[in-house]
Amino acid sequence: MDKIRRNERMSAMLKILTDQPNHQLTLSYFCDLFGAAKSTMSEDIDLLCNTLRSFELGEIQTLTGAAGGVFYRPSVRDEQAAAYIGELCRQLSGTERLLPGGFLYYSDILSSPQMTQRMGEIIATQYYGMAPDFVLTMETKGIPVALMTARALGVPLVIARHTSKVYEGPAVNINYVSGSSGSIQTMSLARRAVQEGQKALIVDDFLKGGGTARGMVELMREFHVQVVGAAFVMETDDPPKKRIAGEKALMRLRIHREGDEEWAEVTPAEWLMK
Amino acid sequence: MDKIRRNERMSAMLKILTDQPNHQLTLSYFCDLFGAAKSTMSEDIDLLCNTLRSFELGEIQTLTGAAGGVFYRPSVRDEQAAAYIGELCRQLSGTERLLPGGFLYYSDILSSPQMTQRMGEIIATQYYGMAPDFVLTMETKGIPVALMTARALGVPLVIARHTSKVYEGPAVNINYVSGSSGSIQTMSLARRAVQEGQKALIVDDFLKGGGTARGMVELMREFHVQVVGAAFVMETDDPPKKRIAGEKALMRLRIHREGDEEWAEVTPAEWLMK
Repeated sequence: MDKIRRNERMSAMLKILTDQPNHQLTLSYFCDLFGAAKSTMSEDIDLLCNTLRSFELGEIQTLTGAAGGVFYRPSVRDEQAAAYIGELCRQLSGTERLLPGGFLYYSDILSSPQMTQRMGEIIATQYYGMAPDFVLTMETKGIPVALMTARALGVPLVIARHTSKVYEGPAVNINYVSGSSGSIQTMSLARRAVQEGQKALIVDDFLKGGGTARGMVELMREFHVQVVGAAFVMETDDPPKKRIAGEKALMRLRIHREGDEEWAEVTPAEWLMK
Repeated sequence: MDKIRRNERMSAMLKILTDQPNHQLTLSYFCDLFGAAKSTMSEDIDLLCNTLRSFELGEIQTLTGAAGGVFYRPSVRDEQAAAYIGELCRQLSGTERLLPGGFLYYSDILSSPQMTQRMGEIIATQYYGMAPDFVLTMETKGIPVALMTARALGVPLVIARHTSKVYEGPAVNINYVSGSSGSIQTMSLARRAVQEGQKALIVDDFLKGGGTARGMVELMREFHVQVVGAAFVMETDDPPKKRIAGEKALMRLRIHREGDEEWAEVTPAEWLMK
């Protein structure tokens, strides 16, 4: 093989790192791949760091020492996140997406690969410090954004179901009070899906009363798993008090009514605008 | 700003292109971003093409002319795909993942961001030529791989539900015969989710009888949408005849029984091994 040039090494390394966010690779791995010295690779990595930083495309970090290596995080700066979510809020506000009963249609956004990836990166940025072992969601609508958050964090996604399924094997079931309807519902998770002592990040699409979120917290307690955070795409302003603490939502939904007219006001969450 | 060097331009361009697979960006966009001439950008792109090709990291393509531009596809070569799926089959075969009733536990794989991304890229590679406008799946287990296929194709994901929901708005419902249980089930899709004349690619986790897949084809007919393909993560060898034609599965599941013993044999699909 011809000698590999710096621009080739940097491009290939960046592609490999960004394909596996928050996953550490050793310097030796890249040295072998490119047939280059460690000092050369270190220089390449420094250049990559600076490039990503100046174009705001996430960050590459290195850890030195025996367990050292290099990894990529698709971190999103606060101002970038606020701008992105602000634009999304403008698309969602108004009357066009409002359905009878005060429901907002945004299923298209919740299943968009592009948008869920970006929302997932924004959420992940808030929780890198907590180092969750997996992301937990409750079927169905939150799955895409939860998957993309798990991707950005470099951890598995675990999906709780409404009923236990034969193809999941032995499962733990809990009952919870649905915040919106007040009815008793079941939440089920396969025994083998998570392990005692792990740390979970809850990610879901919608937070109203917080009953489902509370159910997920209780489900994790059954597994002796610590919940390190809970993030949602959208929360309603009503009820103001949720049955879960310390949650973070990207957007806040308020339905305005004047006579026969109804419209949705969607605003970025306060923590995003600080 | 200092002059941007080739290795910086190439890295930043690659990151921007790979963040939006199969999405075309103009040369002018990059010229403006980097303050570089078109001829310089063309050279950068040629170098990127070659680098990705030699490290088998997907491909960058350029279209010339007025509507011209550059885009990235995470294409997976046949031998790469066969090796990846072959390794997955080894993990799934045997007795460890087999549940009572001959069910295979692979929910962890179906919700793994890494693995679904790779499977999605392998599936997308087969359908770039058909240029689907969206990916269609039926809730719940196929959502992650369908999302990642949609991501690789650069198109939206559309999710059919078992019941119509108030937050989806007006919906089209159809009834279909579930292949495995023979029971009548309902499939529902919001009116505004797709448009007449579009092309759909069906992606789901599991193909047994093909009842659900057939239901999705009929649902698309109601919307006057053409189905250009159907891809599955796993198909069973029994029944051999499916109620859908031209489908592609990544893996094939055969359950062996000898006396009290049961084990799973999972093999890569034939089209992958050609």
